[in-house]
Amino acid sequence: MSEKRPVVVDLRFARESVVNALRSAFPDRPVVDMGDPANADRDLSDAEFAVVWKPDPALFRRATGLKAIFSGGAGVDHILSAYELPDLPIIRFVDRSLTDRMSEWVVWQCLHHLRNGIAYAGQQQARVWHEIADQPEAREVTVGVMGLGVLGADAVHKLKVMGFDVIGWSRRAKAIDGVVTFDAKGLDTFLGRTDILVGLLPLTDDTRGIYDRALFSRLRRAGPLGGSIFLNAGRGGSQKEAELIECLKDGTLKSASVDVFEKEPLDPDSPLWSMPNVIVTPHAAAASDVRALFRHVEAQIARLEAGKPLEFVVDRTAGY
Amino acid sequence: MSEKRPVVVDLRFARESVVNALRSAFPDRPVVDMGDPANADRDLSDAEFAVVWKPDPALFRRATGLKAIFSGGAGVDHILSAYELPDLPIIRFVDRSLTDRMSEWVVWQCLHHLRNGIAYAGQQQARVWHEIADQPEAREVTVGVMGLGVLGADAVHKLKVMGFDVIGWSRRAKAIDGVVTFDAKGLDTFLGRTDILVGLLPLTDDTRGIYDRALFSRLRRAGPLGGSIFLNAGRGGSQKEAELIECLKDGTLKSASVDVFEKEPLDPDSPLWSMPNVIVTPHAAAASDVRALFRHVEAQIARLEAGKPLEFVVDRTAGY
Repeated sequence: MSEKRPVVVDLRFARESVVNALRSAFPDRPVVDMGDPANADRDLSDAEFAVVWKPDPALFRRATGLKAIFSGGAGVDHILSAYELPDLPIIRFVDRSLTDRMSEWVVWQCLHHLRNGIAYAGQQQARVWHEIADQPEAREVTVGVMGLGVLGADAVHKLKVMGFDVIGWSRRAKAIDGVVTFDAKGLDTFLGRTDILVGLLPLTDDTRGIYDRALFSRLRRAGPLGGSIFLNAGRGGSQKEAELIECLKDGTLKSASVDVFEKEPLDPDSPLWSMPNVIVTPHAAAASDVRALFRHVEAQIARLEAGKPLEFVVDRTAGY
Repeated sequence: MSEKRPVVVDLRFARESVVNALRSAFPDRPVVDMGDPANADRDLSDAEFAVVWKPDPALFRRATGLKAIFSGGAGVDHILSAYELPDLPIIRFVDRSLTDRMSEWVVWQCLHHLRNGIAYAGQQQARVWHEIADQPEAREVTVGVMGLGVLGADAVHKLKVMGFDVIGWSRRAKAIDGVVTFDAKGLDTFLGRTDILVGLLPLTDDTRGIYDRALFSRLRRAGPLGGSIFLNAGRGGSQKEAELIECLKDGTLKSASVDVFEKEPLDPDSPLWSMPNVIVTPHAAAASDVRALFRHVEAQIARLEAGKPLEFVVDRTAGY
């Protein structure tokens, strides 16, 4: 029925979620689902668009007729790191659902540390009835958010509503109403005021390994929580995990919540699993809703076909 | 220096917090601190005001000259249940800090259940990397808040900002902007729509034991969380604990977060401590800030002395 050229889909997500979402996606054009073994050797030169998450390295060599590449998530480092990446627009996935889910995780974990969730769980296990003294309230605690894109800006807003004192940092200065923000030059001041550091940075050449001992040791340790706390829900490649672990052991950091890791899945032998002051979640802070992803891709393709410019196009020089 | 009559203070809080706060409180009038053994047998007939939390039952018989009684917390059941309670204005403690802290606990625990905090903690302990499927977002989950006073209204607002679908219930109809609310007649409808029930009710004759099997079994069990969830940060006397425990065992309730108990401290033998689907906190959701309490009492006394009406006076018929 259609003369449209195919969309090639190479999403390393839970298989069922992709299959289910594809049932109602792209009604007017063929879909080549690379998760289907029958497509392993298919000629891809006719594909017009690609929707990918950690795609097969050979994909872009085979799909020679692409007009645009859509990332299956907020991050695009998995695409930019590909060999032989063609010079095409790459489009980030920006979606209300993804944003809301990320803020849920960030606020949840900030409150968990503020309200002594780890200590109270220990007391419960020991059947100890004891109210922990000197409970600060959110307004006494400064949360510093690194990364002020769509996700960071939403987290900042919701943390503020919950009462936290919130400051923000991004490499290039970004203004957010009612929030003090810092840029590259202001990093020291930003860190020195931060009790809970929230990492929402994209992974780029500039941010690889940025969360290291040097950075952690510049956080405010004399704040009302009795130590500095680190949350990372951005990219695992931004943290030096060995240094993170050492800092959690020697008190440079009081505690941490980590959703992303240098290598995923996290090695079963990683000390992080069993550290008493660490919360581990399995890259689950903000799962892409695959149906919403396809709706977003359809909307962008429709824009292109109507002669309008694509939105959320990645700046390759910046890396996000 | 002062001819003013004393304030009698009988607050069963952590002793240090009372002593510290008294240092800067009531500069222009004598304070009789009942926590000081030297005051045990003091004549109290000259006291003009009382600030109490779970006071000595004999206090009101001894302090015959009181003009008003201030509660040390949001609840007043500990005063109303006193024998020989004189017919005086009783003033609730309403304070920004208390309200903010309560909303912190409520939002924290709602997010903890929404985002599978209990299951992920178990997976972490077992070093299992597994993203739990079908994670609903907040907007798919209905939180039903019982009790729409100052605390309930603030919790409703913050839960909405976090994306939850929020509905409210109070015995007498109460309108909250942008939120569907129910009164006594609407209880069934309210419960049938609620996935997470948040208990913020005062303890009165009407609410004693209101959280029982009959109520829990009317909650929506077929919602996106795969079961009904109960949070109580109001008063322990409002829950039938034996029925709560049975409902948590037989699946009538999926899980619970409980901060208040029929008898506090919670008995070390209570099954609640070790139930895998229960979070216990030791009546720590919203500790009164004693300094803020004394500021509030000073402000109300100043109003009285300026000929203005007292605020936050308890309606004895309603019980709160």
